[in-house]
Amino acid sequence: MLRDKTVTIVGLGLMGGSLALALHGHCAVVRGMDHDPAVVAMAIRRGIVDIGSTDLAEAITPADLVVLATPVRTILALIPQVSSLLRPGTLLLDIGSTKTAIMTAMASLPPGVEGIGGHPLCGKEIAGLTAAQGDLYQGKVFVLTPRPQTSPAALTLAQGLVQAIGARPQVLTPEHHDRLVAAISHLPYLESAALAQIAAERATADPLVWWLAASGFRDTSRLAASDVTMMLDILLTNGVHIVPLARQAAAQLEAMAAWIEAGDEVALRHALHDSQEAVVSYRLVQEQYCQQTLASCQR
Amino acid sequence: MLRDKTVTIVGLGLMGGSLALALHGHCAVVRGMDHDPAVVAMAIRRGIVDIGSTDLAEAITPADLVVLATPVRTILALIPQVSSLLRPGTLLLDIGSTKTAIMTAMASLPPGVEGIGGHPLCGKEIAGLTAAQGDLYQGKVFVLTPRPQTSPAALTLAQGLVQAIGARPQVLTPEHHDRLVAAISHLPYLESAALAQIAAERATADPLVWWLAASGFRDTSRLAASDVTMMLDILLTNGVHIVPLARQAAAQLEAMAAWIEAGDEVALRHALHDSQEAVVSYRLVQEQYCQQTLASCQR
Repeated sequence: MLRDKTVTIVGLGLMGGSLALALHGHCAVVRGMDHDPAVVAMAIRRGIVDIGSTDLAEAITPADLVVLATPVRTILALIPQVSSLLRPGTLLLDIGSTKTAIMTAMASLPPGVEGIGGHPLCGKEIAGLTAAQGDLYQGKVFVLTPRPQTSPAALTLAQGLVQAIGARPQVLTPEHHDRLVAAISHLPYLESAALAQIAAERATADPLVWWLAASGFRDTSRLAASDVTMMLDILLTNGVHIVPLARQAAAQLEAMAAWIEAGDEVALRHALHDSQEAVVSYRLVQEQYCQQTLASCQR
Repeated sequence: MLRDKTVTIVGLGLMGGSLALALHGHCAVVRGMDHDPAVVAMAIRRGIVDIGSTDLAEAITPADLVVLATPVRTILALIPQVSSLLRPGTLLLDIGSTKTAIMTAMASLPPGVEGIGGHPLCGKEIAGLTAAQGDLYQGKVFVLTPRPQTSPAALTLAQGLVQAIGARPQVLTPEHHDRLVAAISHLPYLESAALAQIAAERATADPLVWWLAASGFRDTSRLAASDVTMMLDILLTNGVHIVPLARQAAAQLEAMAAWIEAGDEVALRHALHDSQEAVVSYRLVQEQYCQQTLASCQR
């Protein structure tokens, strides 16, 4: 049971800090580790963790459950280090935003150490412990990607953690997860980045660009403010799914540009109508979800 | 002075209805005209307008100030009709989302009739009178594009209307306006439409796409839900500025796809960092604006 466990969170940023906050009262001890002593000190001072450390071995050796909450490529580097330190029976969970590369790395875990991938579908574009909030996971989908050898008990423990923080577990294969998030998370980020780059170029010549930007720009540019290292890691470990989608988006923009240029109202109306219908379908699914769960629906 | 004037709003949708609500107490009479009798009846029943009509001549003949609040190409069709009905001294203001085509159409206004273009930088993706709200314009930039022959008195009256509804007047040339909004409003819409189309295509094969979509997708897809006729009119009357930007966005997405594919971390990090900086600059300008005005800053 989770409530008897010592949980160590490696990486006390937005996601790790929020997880620590959400776990209080649901497990025996919340330990936190971060390479930055100032972050560890803040986490202890604010009661975000029960015990803090900058030393990986010290932090994870006493743990029953270790959560890696860093950018994806840091997780990839941590797995071999952690591997040799974990006691048999410990469960290693990561919450990195792409899963295929991480699950491949987990193949090297020693027998006896349990491993499972995770990805909570939430976040903010503000990074760091100061942005952490205990209700970040409330009502959100939390994907779990078990290994073939993950035991039912380990999966149950991971699902228990997800439910304890108010999130909704969804078991997927790593490949399925990465394909899905490319469309609903990574492509939106790339489009947001392209928009911000273009608007900035215009703003250099004409500062009124920023002055006139209203809520439409605010919402579509928000993701471009995401932590660059986190996003780089995501993009470079999920290229197989992201690259074709980015090219498809480029082709769609090209097509719409050509229809506008040619005054092809029929083709343009058809495409825009499809887009509008897509948002209607998406909202319908989200509303059904809200009605089913009565959970916080601020997704 | 605005408070002595009869204002007629042609088109009682989200923008026209919200304008009517915001004008109460600031002018003598608010008249409303819509081609749909059910909309006019609702506007009267809810006290959104003092007098309602489905007849253009009846609605605008008594007016001192006529506001055209319909999609852009309906405005273009209305200008010649309205032209022959307006009394000399009347001010014609439109609030269409592109300005060059409309100001060209206003060149045919008879002498004695004043004309000025307008564009409030606000809105919602929900169309129609039921979505109208009296505070929609509060704190928002409201662009005014005077004609060369617009009198100072007419400009002052238009500025008075903008200020009365809590918005902030910004005088621009039509061409400058259209160039600016292409980058901060029309390109975001096209990107949002491309995203929604691609996600919908994936969702047809895999309904989990909508299930997993979180706040990033919600915000970046929102504009794709905009009224299609309104957006078609915007795109088809501002192609000169939109087409090159859409192609630039396509090229940017292509470039990022190529860097991801090649694992060119340096180029990718540079571009993503620029995007992040752009959002920082944008937010700084918006914050300065909030501090200056103390107006509602929910932009």
